[in-house]
Amino acid sequence: MSENKTVLYSYWRSSCSWRVRVALAYKKIKYEYKAIHLLKDGGQQKTEEYSKINPMKAIPTLEIDGHIIGQSLAILEYLEETHPENPLMPNGAYERAIARQMMQIIGSDIQPLQNLKILGLVGQYSGDEAKKAEWARTIITNGFNGLEKLLEKHSGKFCVGDSVSFADLCLPAQVYNANRFNVDMTPYPNITRVNQYLLTIPEFIEALPQNQPDAEPQC
Amino acid sequence: MSENKTVLYSYWRSSCSWRVRVALAYKKIKYEYKAIHLLKDGGQQKTEEYSKINPMKAIPTLEIDGHIIGQSLAILEYLEETHPENPLMPNGAYERAIARQMMQIIGSDIQPLQNLKILGLVGQYSGDEAKKAEWARTIITNGFNGLEKLLEKHSGKFCVGDSVSFADLCLPAQVYNANRFNVDMTPYPNITRVNQYLLTIPEFIEALPQNQPDAEPQC
Repeated sequence: MSENKTVLYSYWRSSCSWRVRVALAYKKIKYEYKAIHLLKDGGQQKTEEYSKINPMKAIPTLEIDGHIIGQSLAILEYLEETHPENPLMPNGAYERAIARQMMQIIGSDIQPLQNLKILGLVGQYSGDEAKKAEWARTIITNGFNGLEKLLEKHSGKFCVGDSVSFADLCLPAQVYNANRFNVDMTPYPNITRVNQYLLTIPEFIEALPQNQPDAEPQC
Repeated sequence: MSENKTVLYSYWRSSCSWRVRVALAYKKIKYEYKAIHLLKDGGQQKTEEYSKINPMKAIPTLEIDGHIIGQSLAILEYLEETHPENPLMPNGAYERAIARQMMQIIGSDIQPLQNLKILGLVGQYSGDEAKKAEWARTIITNGFNGLEKLLEKHSGKFCVGDSVSFADLCLPAQVYNANRFNVDMTPYPNITRVNQYLLTIPEFIEALPQNQPDAEPQC
């Protein structure tokens, strides 16, 4: 690990890596992209070499300033603290709290409950592969029901008013997953509107799965 | 909601409420405890009245400074920002990142995957109530395997060196759950040691489930 090199261990379709890619784009931090394929070779995140970098055997991991940091939401906070230019959080403490409340709804109550590993367990426990999509829809719908109410109250162009926040960084990947699992988005006009706006912003476009070096042709 | 009254909506055995109770004790913030029984009446968190306060229909919720904030980890950050006395995070940005990495392992990768709601789904999907404890053990073991490695490297008396951090606030409830599900703690000497130390600290003792006004006799 070099003191000065910034390296992101990422997978093009990983929701959690996606959040960090948006942050790095906003902060204008140049980095080396190291692809960790979550499926190939039984999951490259499970190798002994990688698990020394990230003992949860998960992505993303960021090497920066001579440090190694895992867990996407911890990385976002670190980047905001150490690179305050181009802020990714609103000014007021209450507005920041609401942004983190939304971020944690996605980051604790939705995404981890419907990721690859958990859906694998669901398939195993139910003995029915078809149940995986049903489980994912249940989880996403439950989370979006709460998130939509918060957006109804607090959103402007972005999730919290008219400036970008951590909540926005987490939103596009979650809507992308909702679409993959055919979640009916009709009850979520605010989520849909904010997400559509985000996807017009260069930093968000740069972070899209299809714009990563390890992107694969979509099936 | 009064501008000046602090109210915590909590349940004595809720892991996420527990974290916030420790923080409020450290910050010496007096508050009114409003019990939300997660099982009684089909779950008091699901009432229309409560869901207006917390649209995720989850606890904790904190009313403070005239605001309403949900999601425990967002509440911790708000308390630390607005009440910097008796700090709950270390000084260095890297140390804070590691504390948040540990906090997110518990708060995203363990707790939400083995809470009451998800175990209900597991019972439903597997058609076997006995599978719930097995699922919980799988989840906790997976998370503790990663967390132990981080503690091996970074812990002192506390999770990160010798001062308290958000990571510590999340630990006791997760170890308590591990014990409830009979997780073998032998592979986790650092988790066990730090947790035992935490449970000697007055602020952590005050936050214990059995010391809450809605505590029930243990079976």
